[in-house]
Amino acid sequence: MSKIYLDTKPRAEALAALLSRVEIPRREINVPAAKALGMVTAAPVFANSSMPAYHASAMDGIAVRAEHTFGASDQTPLLLEPGTDYLPVNTGNPLPKGFDAVIKIEETQPRPGGALEIMAPATPWQHIRPVGEDVVEGDLIVSGYHRLRPPDLGVLLAGGIEQLAVLEPPRIIIIPTGSEIVPPGHRLTVGQITDFNSTAVSAYLEEWGANPVIWPIVPDDREQIKKSLFEATKEGDLVIIIAGSSAGQKDFTALTIEDLGEVFLHGVATRPGKPTILGRVGDIPVVGLPGYPVSAYLSLEWFVRPIIYRYYGQPEPERERFPVTLGRRITSEIGEEEHIRLSIGFVNGHFIGNPLPRGAGVTMSLVQADGLLVIPAESAGFEQGETVQVELYRPSVELRSNLLAAGSHDLILNLLATALKQRDPNVNLTSSHLGSMGGIMAINNDQAHIAGVHLFDPTSGEYNLPYIRELLPGKPVLLVNLTYRQQGWMVPSGNPDRVNTVADLAEKKLEFINRQKGAGTRLLFDYLLAKNELAATQISGYQREEHTHLNVAAAVAAGTAQAGLGILSAARAFDLHFIPVAEERYDLLMTEDFYQSPAGQLLLGIISDPSFQAEVEKLGGYSMREAGKVFRP
Amino acid sequence: MSKIYLDTKPRAEALAALLSRVEIPRREINVPAAKALGMVTAAPVFANSSMPAYHASAMDGIAVRAEHTFGASDQTPLLLEPGTDYLPVNTGNPLPKGFDAVIKIEETQPRPGGALEIMAPATPWQHIRPVGEDVVEGDLIVSGYHRLRPPDLGVLLAGGIEQLAVLEPPRIIIIPTGSEIVPPGHRLTVGQITDFNSTAVSAYLEEWGANPVIWPIVPDDREQIKKSLFEATKEGDLVIIIAGSSAGQKDFTALTIEDLGEVFLHGVATRPGKPTILGRVGDIPVVGLPGYPVSAYLSLEWFVRPIIYRYYGQPEPERERFPVTLGRRITSEIGEEEHIRLSIGFVNGHFIGNPLPRGAGVTMSLVQADGLLVIPAESAGFEQGETVQVELYRPSVELRSNLLAAGSHDLILNLLATALKQRDPNVNLTSSHLGSMGGIMAINNDQAHIAGVHLFDPTSGEYNLPYIRELLPGKPVLLVNLTYRQQGWMVPSGNPDRVNTVADLAEKKLEFINRQKGAGTRLLFDYLLAKNELAATQISGYQREEHTHLNVAAAVAAGTAQAGLGILSAARAFDLHFIPVAEERYDLLMTEDFYQSPAGQLLLGIISDPSFQAEVEKLGGYSMREAGKVFRP
Repeated sequence: MSKIYLDTKPRAEALAALLSRVEIPRREINVPAAKALGMVTAAPVFANSSMPAYHASAMDGIAVRAEHTFGASDQTPLLLEPGTDYLPVNTGNPLPKGFDAVIKIEETQPRPGGALEIMAPATPWQHIRPVGEDVVEGDLIVSGYHRLRPPDLGVLLAGGIEQLAVLEPPRIIIIPTGSEIVPPGHRLTVGQITDFNSTAVSAYLEEWGANPVIWPIVPDDREQIKKSLFEATKEGDLVIIIAGSSAGQKDFTALTIEDLGEVFLHGVATRPGKPTILGRVGDIPVVGLPGYPVSAYLSLEWFVRPIIYRYYGQPEPERERFPVTLGRRITSEIGEEEHIRLSIGFVNGHFIGNPLPRGAGVTMSLVQADGLLVIPAESAGFEQGETVQVELYRPSVELRSNLLAAGSHDLILNLLATALKQRDPNVNLTSSHLGSMGGIMAINNDQAHIAGVHLFDPTSGEYNLPYIRELLPGKPVLLVNLTYRQQGWMVPSGNPDRVNTVADLAEKKLEFINRQKGAGTRLLFDYLLAKNELAATQISGYQREEHTHLNVAAAVAAGTAQAGLGILSAARAFDLHFIPVAEERYDLLMTEDFYQSPAGQLLLGIISDPSFQAEVEKLGGYSMREAGKVFRP
Repeated sequence: MSKIYLDTKPRAEALAALLSRVEIPRREINVPAAKALGMVTAAPVFANSSMPAYHASAMDGIAVRAEHTFGASDQTPLLLEPGTDYLPVNTGNPLPKGFDAVIKIEETQPRPGGALEIMAPATPWQHIRPVGEDVVEGDLIVSGYHRLRPPDLGVLLAGGIEQLAVLEPPRIIIIPTGSEIVPPGHRLTVGQITDFNSTAVSAYLEEWGANPVIWPIVPDDREQIKKSLFEATKEGDLVIIIAGSSAGQKDFTALTIEDLGEVFLHGVATRPGKPTILGRVGDIPVVGLPGYPVSAYLSLEWFVRPIIYRYYGQPEPERERFPVTLGRRITSEIGEEEHIRLSIGFVNGHFIGNPLPRGAGVTMSLVQADGLLVIPAESAGFEQGETVQVELYRPSVELRSNLLAAGSHDLILNLLATALKQRDPNVNLTSSHLGSMGGIMAINNDQAHIAGVHLFDPTSGEYNLPYIRELLPGKPVLLVNLTYRQQGWMVPSGNPDRVNTVADLAEKKLEFINRQKGAGTRLLFDYLLAKNELAATQISGYQREEHTHLNVAAAVAAGTAQAGLGILSAARAFDLHFIPVAEERYDLLMTEDFYQSPAGQLLLGIISDPSFQAEVEKLGGYSMREAGKVFRP
């Protein structure tokens, strides 16, 4: 029953194959010009009338006969009588019959009896907008296949065009498939997943100018998918089937397209995005998207966007390309083009890009991404410090004010991100969760602006400073205290296993879930083990690692671990029981230069703001008693 | 009664004054996440639930106990029995209880009785998406003041957010004023102008995310404007009054704002855009826009766009800035910042920018503009050949394929523009109407790709070639014939003045309208005068110049001239009577390099296409008998 990919083609080849086989025929509709913003003309539009339709005064002033004013000067001012010599005109008024020039009102002097004096002659046709100055009847206003912008609408109306033919947005039908998928708004049971892909896919299509419709979810059943696909090809200009595009037992997309038409490609040599299907039923193109969101959205952009833009006769917009220095090494498998999402910031004069999680399921990587790095199929990746060309998701000018946070994760960073944006809309704070040690290294390598650190030194009993002195000797950096926070055991509600000390974990053989190497919380756990003369091997689950407090809490809440070590706010977020173990100091490491910079001072202002501090303490488990205090190594 | 400007402030100062005095208070509304594309969050959004909400298989395959598979290898394959040793799982399925790893289906071999063989061990948690891999309950999904893009909508739904608070678009009320203004769709009488500004202004506001409403047109009456403004400030977050912002007799905008509130700026030191008014009524900002479209739209962008973006907490998008070489000298008055619209093309390795008509009333200049050159107040302009920074209206990659046509105007250029775009959506053909001589100079200076020329040499009786040989000696250029066309007298319908020859114009003292110096049609007229031994002074209106055939035809149709010389298609466009005078050859001048280039060959393909030729001949007065024929000097 299992089917393997028919073939796996390079992306460009796949696209060429698609475009050579399918095309959506253009359909015109008539719309009022006033409602045509963003629509694309179906044909060139020529003016029906001239603007202005008559010779109009271009100034507020008086209409005169130019010949009559010759000779007027400072020495020999000329008196103009109303009615005979001049008529008052305002901007836009028609030029009265028999007059051929306009003099600005400021250039006249009122005299008794309504007469006006001028001290310079008028030249014929001065300050007059001749018929058709703006638009002449018969003139081309906009060409065919032109996307209408605000001034275009103005000129259309000015040229007497009230209705025009535009291209009707192509109808694209989205068929979500999967027996585990339920529509948004349903209460989920285990094994069910909300269908969020259809909404995102629909939003992309809308952004590109199409008219998307989401059809009901179809379970993994070949006959039902076939029926839905058949009906969709009667109503849509293009059909998208989401999921079931891979080669599993329940992947029916390729089979149903073949049942009704033909599949001309199954599998693209990219990562993510490989399980893409391109085919057609009759003349209707059918695209099978992978179920994983990142794969689905990239594949949509590669294969559906070009069809829509070709329909409109528009070039596809290109993203700004920009050189970025990699903050981390990125490896890639040879033979597959890889698409890596990056967060990007401007640190110490360089644009630094750090890879976001690569999983095809990690939709957050698309939300957080500032840019996309495409690694060609023939490349094995890039080294740390290498400069690469990145397609930007946001303009480079905006990225200049991005703040990169590395190091240990704390929920306060979320609040900080929002507070920064409230004070300066240009500032985006993005976090890489690298653990405290990773954060120190990121600051050392100019790969982040700030790093959260909470590293206890058992020898001195001091936090953070001993590590900074040892790891960054001589580097002009400092620590700004962000908070003191409670670390403790996160266990299920009611503490069924009666966890109190680290020894309980070993004795009761509880399933623990650990943090990654280099995380301050892991060092704290190791310190607790050592203090209690316990070995890592005595802790079940010591090797299982998560990267954030919330992920640890989630695992305990899901019942796949019985205990974890973390902060109170994370335990609260999942209604877990929390047993305090230690209060620790959580500082932000930064360079002196950044501290002095406007962005650094903005950050310090927020941390020192009593209303921000109150907001943090409301989360529970935080003390802001020294927030903003500076520690220098 | 006449009022002068209160003051005239530099643009940046005016904006700062405005932003320090007014602000639209933020209002939130709740919307379904699925409908929130393009909206801006009112607050940070945190996930309500985790995605996945359970440990899910990341592959189609089988769930196993990792420990049980240790030792499996090529040499010692391991047989797994269904139910006890493995359970089949598809992507997205929950991990069955008691299992802790997934093996891909491709890495198993079916054996009799439903058993499967594996030849490699599984590592714990392999191919499993742990709870919250994508989104963890409590995690920040998007910050406050974030404009929602397609993947954001996906993650919101994935994180269990079905409704969220976004900023309600600010309501902006547009009040068009002017006794001469009528709504679009009305049949115009002399002195009436269609209100197209309101629609364009509304479209700009819509594009920037506001909610614009166009109110009824108010005549130039102080009390009526005051009444409308008063009501608008009760219903809108911001009010725009169009026109009446200058200092004429009928300009009541500033007065009415002062009647109800305060005017804090009247006049900006820019050209166009000077007659702008900034004020407020109560807390409601009121902006008085100039009536001239180009002024109005620029002023709108300078003063209203920043208020909208600040409301949304968003940085204003910046246009790409790009160095462009000026194809013509541009002078500017010192003391006023000047905004010049440019058409831009890529000629012979350089981006060349040519100024479009500068009139504040020439809306077409905004439609045709590829970029905007801002000349600072302290500059007197730029020389031809100088390189200047230009704000691009279209991406530089698109401008690379722009084709610049200079020289003589012919209606066929409109058809050519459309035909080019139909064949290649990237190609925009823009024309500067410089006359034949101006076109030759533009080709000589690498300022255009093609130039329309129709220059008769009385000595040789030959068209165009003698001029090229003399003016461009040694330059590798050639001529491609576009058409032969009828030139003739354009006179009112029925030929009331019985015009037949050039002598009739002089004898009957008819009002003539001429073409600009350097235009082939003007040279033809001069040739006709000389042949008939007439002097220019004998022709009334010889000095009055228009730049295109259509403008000449429009003047005759409007009755301000009794005769003009031009082409049949222009006469037909205005239902004028046409008396043929000469058939002339109209060629396109281009360099050899351009001729050989893909764009040149594309152009030649169109000119040589019989269906294109038929379309041209349908216009009347054209013969395409030698279209595409090459003449080399």
